[in-house]
Amino acid sequence: MLALGIDPGTAICGYGFVESNGSRLIAHEYGAITTSAKARPEDRLAKIYDELDMLIKKYKPDVMGVEQLFFNSNVTTAIPVGQARGVVLLAAAKNGLELVERTPLQVKQSVTGYGKATKEQVIYMVTKLLNLPEPPKPDDVADALAVAICTSHVLNSFTYRNKI
Amino acid sequence: MLALGIDPGTAICGYGFVESNGSRLIAHEYGAITTSAKARPEDRLAKIYDELDMLIKKYKPDVMGVEQLFFNSNVTTAIPVGQARGVVLLAAAKNGLELVERTPLQVKQSVTGYGKATKEQVIYMVTKLLNLPEPPKPDDVADALAVAICTSHVLNSFTYRNKI
Repeated sequence: MLALGIDPGTAICGYGFVESNGSRLIAHEYGAITTSAKARPEDRLAKIYDELDMLIKKYKPDVMGVEQLFFNSNVTTAIPVGQARGVVLLAAAKNGLELVERTPLQVKQSVTGYGKATKEQVIYMVTKLLNLPEPPKPDDVADALAVAICTSHVLNSFTYRNKI
Repeated sequence: MLALGIDPGTAICGYGFVESNGSRLIAHEYGAITTSAKARPEDRLAKIYDELDMLIKKYKPDVMGVEQLFFNSNVTTAIPVGQARGVVLLAAAKNGLELVERTPLQVKQSVTGYGKATKEQVIYMVTKLLNLPEPPKPDDVADALAVAICTSHVLNSFTYRNKI
């Protein structure tokens, strides 16, 4: 089962593909789609959509995971983050991908065992669980991989099998 | 010149096409794309995208206008509004539509002559300026038409001609 985790953002949109084979987790392609602040907002969103669409068509994940945001603690970034999240969700719908949404607390819990883990703990555990040669950079990529790990756990759990 | 004004929202996405012929304004198609709260978020965004894309291809506007939001006063709606705005901007980019962004204050100023006009004043002036048989419902449609009127004014103004 291949899960695609996304950390949406207009400047940096992190992504990571994680395959789960029983309890084994294997990282496949991961990285970030970046856009220039000089580009027009609509062109930045189109770049995110197009590159993500291309990645989905290339790697054919079974599911997409995105953090569930009820509100953004930083009101000035809530609109741009929402906009990027909108085109990410559209890419899932257009490719018929099942979507798993979990809160940041649930993602941290799933990866580190502690819902209030620090960013450093999350990066450390992502690197360890996926046996990566070095911590993924920038942080958005580590966050995307954390979401992919959480999504794999959700799919493998009894709760999820009962839900879908 | 045909301007398409949009008032983005996940439940109700208002739209209005306004043609400007010199100082004369003529309303063409206007209404709202609505989605069910029971539908999955990604499917709601796909419905907004698809219907808007269809409207753009059918009426071939010269420009799209959307209110510029630096932040949303209601933090709980900022993410869903941002998501809807994201797919609206993507539809503009994918159809090669020029985008005009103006603040709510500028839109009100343009339609009523007063940046702090009430919702009722905006609806009244939209109905009057476009010579509509009755006030457009719901409010999101009136807001979309107000944005279309403002967009027409921007395009006809000296300032804009100097900018583009």
